[in-house]
Amino acid sequence: MKEQKLSAEKSIDIRFQDVDMMQVVWHGAYITYMEDAREAFGEQHGLSYKLFIAEKIMTPMVDMQVKYLRPLRYGMKPVIRISYRPSDAAKIIFDYEIFDPEKGCVYLRAQTTQVFMDFDYNLLWYSPEFYLNWKKEHGLE
Amino acid sequence: MKEQKLSAEKSIDIRFQDVDMMQVVWHGAYITYMEDAREAFGEQHGLSYKLFIAEKIMTPMVDMQVKYLRPLRYGMKPVIRISYRPSDAAKIIFDYEIFDPEKGCVYLRAQTTQVFMDFDYNLLWYSPEFYLNWKKEHGLE
Amino acid sequence: MKEQKLSAEKSIDIRFQDVDMMQVVWHGAYITYMEDAREAFGEQHGLSYKLFIAEKIMTPMVDMQVKYLRPLRYGMKPVIRISYRPSDAAKIIFDYEIFDPEKGCVYLRAQTTQVFMDFDYNLLWYSPEFYLNWKKEHGLE
Amino acid sequence: MKEQKLSAEKSIDIRFQDVDMMQVVWHGAYITYMEDAREAFGEQHGLSYKLFIAEKIMTPMVDMQVKYLRPLRYGMKPVIRISYRPSDAAKIIFDYEIFDPEKGCVYLRAQTTQVFMDFDYNLLWYSPEFYLNWKKEHGLE
Repeated sequence: MKEQKLSAEKSIDIRFQDVDMMQVVWHGAYITYMEDAREAFGEQHGLSYKLFIAEKIMTPMVDMQVKYLRPLRYGMKPVIRISYRPSDAAKIIFDYEIFDPEKGCVYLRAQTTQVFMDFDYNLLWYSPEFYLNWKKEHGLE
Repeated sequence: MKEQKLSAEKSIDIRFQDVDMMQVVWHGAYITYMEDAREAFGEQHGLSYKLFIAEKIMTPMVDMQVKYLRPLRYGMKPVIRISYRPSDAAKIIFDYEIFDPEKGCVYLRAQTTQVFMDFDYNLLWYSPEFYLNWKKEHGLE
Repeated sequence: MKEQKLSAEKSIDIRFQDVDMMQVVWHGAYITYMEDAREAFGEQHGLSYKLFIAEKIMTPMVDMQVKYLRPLRYGMKPVIRISYRPSDAAKIIFDYEIFDPEKGCVYLRAQTTQVFMDFDYNLLWYSPEFYLNWKKEHGLE
Repeated sequence: MKEQKLSAEKSIDIRFQDVDMMQVVWHGAYITYMEDAREAFGEQHGLSYKLFIAEKIMTPMVDMQVKYLRPLRYGMKPVIRISYRPSDAAKIIFDYEIFDPEKGCVYLRAQTTQVFMDFDYNLLWYSPEFYLNWKKEHGLE
């Protein structure tokens, strides 16, 4: 039996500049938290941007869905968890959850989908080989 | 018969800083284009942030769905169109489209949903009166 | 006698996201206003980023000095003026002023210095020819 | 004899979004690195934004001077050091240096000056008492 849920967690440092005049985190700042989560996932599981660049592959975002459940405020110490969602398509799909590890409440749920493009901006119809190998190594076929 | 589609258009100035190392607009920069579109809509149709603040109402984002269809690049001159989607719920729903007015191609489609909160962070179950009046004035009931 | 002060003006749209929890524009947001001013100057006077890119020249920032004189707030309608400061060195120097055209008060004064680099990241010791020509055309020698 | 140099260090995670189309960190992204450094200093030495807010004091930026010495690129692992510069004036002055702890080279030097304002946006002519106490506790008079 294979483990089907690769994930990573990262604590969020809410910046002064992330908070808007309503004293809550501006909805666009979460995009950065999600990017930080992808970087943390990549470092932890060997799937970093740097690897893609070395393989001359870009992974542009094609879909992003965000549900804001509760406002974050300055001084809070939330955690973002990013989980890899296996897919047969030539796509990278991540689920995200921002939560308070002590109170247990959830602030955000989101999902992003990225595709593969070569450096001439051609969409790849099939997943690149190094990515298929990465999946194989992690039992994600 | 009532006109059910209030909308506004704004040309997008792609900034140098919006473009990432892949030479395309970073996916998070579109959040700002969409915020600019909401401001343009608000100014044109009398529903600005300033009005909400004067009424001591916040309109936090609770849902955002973005489909990135084609990459934008530095030097392009796209337009964003924002359209108000009437709803009976105590919500403000906008649809967005970024397109090239000459070539006719579409770069992004998105939808956002905002709710009403008072300055004590209580969710409003009903739309505030000034908002209902605004809808009435624009034949949006 | 030659005109020695090339300049451009642009009105600033203060965004909701530019304002911090203290209800004033966050100090980092002015960097974007200054970048917008450089773009406006470039478009108006034929010295755009696109031209530099076409010439395979980068113009990285090497020095930035900013004096914040008064806070900007949401709803204000300030103007930024950018002025080219002629220099014999292989540098591009701009002065900036953000002011209220009606009240006459000044919110910010700044200066930036950029240098020339080729696409291999070598600093250019002399101004590139197209830039010298541009200066000549504008009587800025 | 008193120690006159309070400082803090923080490693910088260069984000994908921080890098511009020239493959180097965009000059505005350093403003965020400097804000992160101030937060780190505040947490380490008991002078956080939260403390100021609790005392109903704002500390707006009034002066910022930045020298960019070398470009940062994606994948680098620099460190930012922030040092408190004692002053008799009612000001908070910090010096910053971004450097590579292994190679020893310096990427940026900067200085910021903040003043004190109450929540009615009145400039304070004298340092607030809690700040004077903080200085005393750290031997910074």
